[in-house]
Amino acid sequence: MKITNAKVIVCSPGRNFVTLKIETDEGIYGIGDATVNGRELAVASYLRDHLVPCLIGRDASQIEDIWQYFYKGAYWRRGPITMAAIAAVDVALWDIKAKAANMPLYQLLGGASRTHMLTYTHANGETIEETSDKVAAFKEQGWKAIRVQSAVPGLPVTYGVEKVGSLAQAEDKPRETLWDTPSYLRFLPKLLDHLRDRFGYELHLLHDVHHRLTPQEAAGLAKEVERHRLFWLEDAVPAENQESFRLIRQHSTTPLALGEVFNSIHDCRQLIQEQLIDYIRTTPLHAGGITHVRRIADLAGLYHIRTACHGAADMSPITMGAALHFDRWVPNFGIQEYAFHPDEAKNVFPHEWHLKDGYLYSGEKPGHGVDIDEKAAEKYPYRRAYLDVARLSDGTMWSW
Amino acid sequence: MKITNAKVIVCSPGRNFVTLKIETDEGIYGIGDATVNGRELAVASYLRDHLVPCLIGRDASQIEDIWQYFYKGAYWRRGPITMAAIAAVDVALWDIKAKAANMPLYQLLGGASRTHMLTYTHANGETIEETSDKVAAFKEQGWKAIRVQSAVPGLPVTYGVEKVGSLAQAEDKPRETLWDTPSYLRFLPKLLDHLRDRFGYELHLLHDVHHRLTPQEAAGLAKEVERHRLFWLEDAVPAENQESFRLIRQHSTTPLALGEVFNSIHDCRQLIQEQLIDYIRTTPLHAGGITHVRRIADLAGLYHIRTACHGAADMSPITMGAALHFDRWVPNFGIQEYAFHPDEAKNVFPHEWHLKDGYLYSGEKPGHGVDIDEKAAEKYPYRRAYLDVARLSDGTMWSW
Amino acid sequence: MKITNAKVIVCSPGRNFVTLKIETDEGIYGIGDATVNGRELAVASYLRDHLVPCLIGRDASQIEDIWQYFYKGAYWRRGPITMAAIAAVDVALWDIKAKAANMPLYQLLGGASRTHMLTYTHANGETIEETSDKVAAFKEQGWKAIRVQSAVPGLPVTYGVEKVGSLAQAEDKPRETLWDTPSYLRFLPKLLDHLRDRFGYELHLLHDVHHRLTPQEAAGLAKEVERHRLFWLEDAVPAENQESFRLIRQHSTTPLALGEVFNSIHDCRQLIQEQLIDYIRTTPLHAGGITHVRRIADLAGLYHIRTACHGAADMSPITMGAALHFDRWVPNFGIQEYAFHPDEAKNVFPHEWHLKDGYLYSGEKPGHGVDIDEKAAEKYPYRRAYLDVARLSDGTMWSW
Amino acid sequence: MKITNAKVIVCSPGRNFVTLKIETDEGIYGIGDATVNGRELAVASYLRDHLVPCLIGRDASQIEDIWQYFYKGAYWRRGPITMAAIAAVDVALWDIKAKAANMPLYQLLGGASRTHMLTYTHANGETIEETSDKVAAFKEQGWKAIRVQSAVPGLPVTYGVEKVGSLAQAEDKPRETLWDTPSYLRFLPKLLDHLRDRFGYELHLLHDVHHRLTPQEAAGLAKEVERHRLFWLEDAVPAENQESFRLIRQHSTTPLALGEVFNSIHDCRQLIQEQLIDYIRTTPLHAGGITHVRRIADLAGLYHIRTACHGAADMSPITMGAALHFDRWVPNFGIQEYAFHPDEAKNVFPHEWHLKDGYLYSGEKPGHGVDIDEKAAEKYPYRRAYLDVARLSDGTMWSW
Repeated sequence: MKITNAKVIVCSPGRNFVTLKIETDEGIYGIGDATVNGRELAVASYLRDHLVPCLIGRDASQIEDIWQYFYKGAYWRRGPITMAAIAAVDVALWDIKAKAANMPLYQLLGGASRTHMLTYTHANGETIEETSDKVAAFKEQGWKAIRVQSAVPGLPVTYGVEKVGSLAQAEDKPRETLWDTPSYLRFLPKLLDHLRDRFGYELHLLHDVHHRLTPQEAAGLAKEVERHRLFWLEDAVPAENQESFRLIRQHSTTPLALGEVFNSIHDCRQLIQEQLIDYIRTTPLHAGGITHVRRIADLAGLYHIRTACHGAADMSPITMGAALHFDRWVPNFGIQEYAFHPDEAKNVFPHEWHLKDGYLYSGEKPGHGVDIDEKAAEKYPYRRAYLDVARLSDGTMWSW
Repeated sequence: MKITNAKVIVCSPGRNFVTLKIETDEGIYGIGDATVNGRELAVASYLRDHLVPCLIGRDASQIEDIWQYFYKGAYWRRGPITMAAIAAVDVALWDIKAKAANMPLYQLLGGASRTHMLTYTHANGETIEETSDKVAAFKEQGWKAIRVQSAVPGLPVTYGVEKVGSLAQAEDKPRETLWDTPSYLRFLPKLLDHLRDRFGYELHLLHDVHHRLTPQEAAGLAKEVERHRLFWLEDAVPAENQESFRLIRQHSTTPLALGEVFNSIHDCRQLIQEQLIDYIRTTPLHAGGITHVRRIADLAGLYHIRTACHGAADMSPITMGAALHFDRWVPNFGIQEYAFHPDEAKNVFPHEWHLKDGYLYSGEKPGHGVDIDEKAAEKYPYRRAYLDVARLSDGTMWSW
Repeated sequence: MKITNAKVIVCSPGRNFVTLKIETDEGIYGIGDATVNGRELAVASYLRDHLVPCLIGRDASQIEDIWQYFYKGAYWRRGPITMAAIAAVDVALWDIKAKAANMPLYQLLGGASRTHMLTYTHANGETIEETSDKVAAFKEQGWKAIRVQSAVPGLPVTYGVEKVGSLAQAEDKPRETLWDTPSYLRFLPKLLDHLRDRFGYELHLLHDVHHRLTPQEAAGLAKEVERHRLFWLEDAVPAENQESFRLIRQHSTTPLALGEVFNSIHDCRQLIQEQLIDYIRTTPLHAGGITHVRRIADLAGLYHIRTACHGAADMSPITMGAALHFDRWVPNFGIQEYAFHPDEAKNVFPHEWHLKDGYLYSGEKPGHGVDIDEKAAEKYPYRRAYLDVARLSDGTMWSW
Repeated sequence: MKITNAKVIVCSPGRNFVTLKIETDEGIYGIGDATVNGRELAVASYLRDHLVPCLIGRDASQIEDIWQYFYKGAYWRRGPITMAAIAAVDVALWDIKAKAANMPLYQLLGGASRTHMLTYTHANGETIEETSDKVAAFKEQGWKAIRVQSAVPGLPVTYGVEKVGSLAQAEDKPRETLWDTPSYLRFLPKLLDHLRDRFGYELHLLHDVHHRLTPQEAAGLAKEVERHRLFWLEDAVPAENQESFRLIRQHSTTPLALGEVFNSIHDCRQLIQEQLIDYIRTTPLHAGGITHVRRIADLAGLYHIRTACHGAADMSPITMGAALHFDRWVPNFGIQEYAFHPDEAKNVFPHEWHLKDGYLYSGEKPGHGVDIDEKAAEKYPYRRAYLDVARLSDGTMWSW
């Protein structure tokens, strides 16, 4: 089965998405997501200008070989742009292979290990009360796990607390938000106290620190919130230096999640092998496709670490489809994130996966079950957009 | 696709083999090998009496779930009998899935990473000259890699040095062979000196110590034979205590191979992560099927360790087929062993895989490409047979 | 003293047991237990078809040599089936040797280090109150140590909480139970709070997690229940990857017990040498007989770790006898488990060991003091039966 | 000093180069190199479409702040595309700052630590004799250090052995070269024997393995060539898993160089802190500009590891200029690579740095001393070109 064509489609149905569509001489095609939010055109170029010319004529069934060809062939390896581009190829090829086998993708990975996926979504409020009411509303809808973020009093804008889709609206420049660690550390336990008082301990609550603390600050926080029995504390510290998590781990048994920004098993090998985290958040997009995420999950499994694919709306519904088929199979599944795509995105990317009572379902259609309506995509041309950045009040650049 | 029947077939076409055949309501069947040489009936019972009743009615496509079901469900986990039984189920189910997809098995694993497999076979002689002539004969036939074993002067029987198939002929009791480490350590370098003198350094020479040395003895030997540039030195020390290989590694750069007796990733995790070996010899039979061997290979890959599936004639042609499809895909393939099955075995197990010019080829038929002729199998009823054991001259039991 | 006969007896007096009876030319015989619950016939075959033919004619006094002969001679070593078979041979041979010496078995191990053995039994209830009342009843009977398990609210069946013997009743397939970690983690401290309130701190309370947690979850639990001063927390995490216990150990001083599923010193070497546990639960059955368990206990003693032989009813009264003689001698004895065999089992296996005031006594008869009434055994033919398995509510296979 | 404009110039004077030119309201401009060979347009897009819009209006003097702004603001961090783009901004801003100060760049880094830079170049030959003669010719010209590569007999194309510039000529697809480790390992010592025989031990000889070996193979080679007293052995093993270098280090004292493909201090932190290498080859281009390479050099200095900036012709003369100013200052300077740019490139990029007697000199002009002739650049439009890839003879993808 030869690859006859591969095209890169950039569209912006609510948010920017980069899609790779690979066509074969047997009429089967597959699609993959290559979106790196805020850097979309660089990945589009990486694919269109550098990878696609090497794809044409290649045997679509040789997924591993093509993965290695682009990984080793890049000479300068790894990084989000490279790995997202490889991921798009990889997911499209697995889509093709599953269609050729006339099977849903999870079947090729080893078959279903579960029927449905525990999923969490985001309750973000300007005040404790607003966050709390959003939690109540999600709970009402059947959600079993909810990530809670609330504006830190005194800070003009807090991560996660804004309207859906608003993140990517800053066209000219990234919005510069303000951060203050002491305010946050004083505030968060109050939010969690309130939520546990109101909702008890059965509902799973998650919280995302979003890379803002030092290891020692994170250790103190993780220790303090042990009493709230969080499902997890996420991205406590920027994690390029993996051993920095030793300090957090030493002081607390609060479960830790990490990895939505990782693109390689080498970004988390030490974290996994030293048992420094509990959930690994790599997705089939930013971490090199099904082929590579499977390797990460298997390594994690050896250490009782569970998967938790990143599922924010910065990735297209294609990645959600690929992730759900991966989740359906992976023995050490933990949880799946889902943050609702804009409605326009649902039109551009018709998909089999669906939500019911707080659980996601992969669907049973051959392949990963997500398609692209290219006509619809044309209606939403790319608009430059950035994620936020963060500064301290004295101007210091901080991790957002 | 429901499993409607599963039968265990024990036959002895030259050697004893245990085969599991799983049938489904869609008419597709798959076969797996459960042979543990010298303990065949125990695995047959494990399958027939304990696993098969749990298989009937189960969804044949849920390979991972069934693997976990039997692994976790055993309560007492691991060990060769358990893992060979699980492997037979696993390989048969992958065979079924690949047939259902109408694809050769390697396609489901990620497609072909190579066209053919570097393979080694065994040159065993009573004398240095006889071994040397056998090497010459194999080289003539196109072999690129040859394992060399030669009778140690003064010892009545040396491992590996006997007629093909004779290993399993001791029906009443295991044959008790004699071992003497000093004789061996004095002799081996002479054999290798001779072979390098005669054949130069282009031909790959391998040697199997077969678990007979202590770590320090092995370290000394590995250091001494650095000059012979072996492809590898195999099974230098019994490896239950993985850290014992640190000593060998510290003293030598001779490549080390290990693992044909391992049945779990936990048997080699430390060996891999501490980079104590270069080739991991686990097969889809003794190490829990395709599902588990893939996990071992991926962990090994992270440490630049390559695969080298055990391929002696103690396993049926089914395992050879499964291994060759695994080899075809696995990115960190090293080499495949092949030691010729008795002719009768070839009749009982018609197979697509084949040898040419010292390379093995997987074949392209859907599934793993090996079948069983049940009628032919009936002609070769099970005969009790044992592998040898070894003693020192004072009677001490030694590792064979 | 030659071995003249060895027979394998499978019977089911309440539960399935596999017994090996070795007879000698001096008229002395010995018996050993080879039961691996749910996999009984596989061990029976391992013995009958593969080991027994090698036993006949051998010198019954060469216990160590025969142990090494079967361990090293298997080529594929370790695992529950292999080691239980070797254990049955080993315990029967020790029984013979002690009878030949006209001494109770503990005398051959080094003589008595104590007169009686601290023993714990199981209080299992559907509710906190029921569990509590059972504790009260056992306390009344003189028990000093009680393992407490209670049904987790919301889960249909909880491990340990059912009628004695009911575990093995699922003949067709293993019963599929449901597990939910968060429910369990919320519930357990309440049970322990109640029990410490009612019974104070003098009574030894034990609890068995039964392999259901991740290391970090276990760390949190072990930390939280420090206030309950448990005698131990058992099997917190599936322990194939021994280093996973580092995390639990780092966060808590709650004593940890482990090892009823281990079959080799290599399964616990790292746990012992890194001082990750406090009690090693290997028995003379699953861990290779008296010969091997003695080695494990000796290594453990070097690290101040105490023994705690598994004593559930999945093993026959023979293992209880062997364990009690082992306990009588072993200098670093900790505690012995006892979970009451079905009455029928007591008829089939007449024994000297006995319970008094919450202590077990080994008896003083030559050998290990347990016999088999073969006539009685015939009345209870083998019935296929399985231990339970566990799944999460989404279908994920979990450790039971 | 506000940034008023920033443009991305892609040209191909012999090879493709990506240049960023930043202009300010004070009329001062600076240039930086963003070339990632074979992936040029992706970096151009990363700059043009995503970074440049954020640069306009920003204070050109805030180099550190802008570095952090782009590094932390990317959210998905690191990788060659991201870091090369940031590097181009960083080098251009340092160029501007030095021009504003009316000083050569090295002055702002701390002033000159040396007058000239020990430099090595490449002697590549089809045969030992050709390589040897090229070494002789370079020696004649005054070179003190020469990297030697020679075609491995039996392999159609060997890395490094081809005409200058020919690497990038494969427009359609990467050229697929063949690799065979055993042939290489047999051959290399012969080349080095010859060269040491002919040239003695005063001339510095370097060799680049180019990521082709496993750690154990590299350990064996590094041990064997100790007798040749190489200046270094480079890129012995693909180095994503940094701990894999422990094995090489354990067996040999041959100096090791690494890092031309690294883009972050996190790619080499472990290598440095465990003292696994002797020279760190990160450049101001691929490793995030002057700002980041300075941090790497400072960490390396703590462990007596010296710098050795990558200097192949895949980077523009701008990077050479930046590297030479960096070299001029850095206290733990080791050596600089130089591989001659195509003549056309020299026209497009007029520069102050120059070669004399095998030493490079940075020049003394304000800034880094390299300019771009935009008119000349227009004459050389981008042509798609790839670096080679490598396969084994069975088709296995290998590191090139």
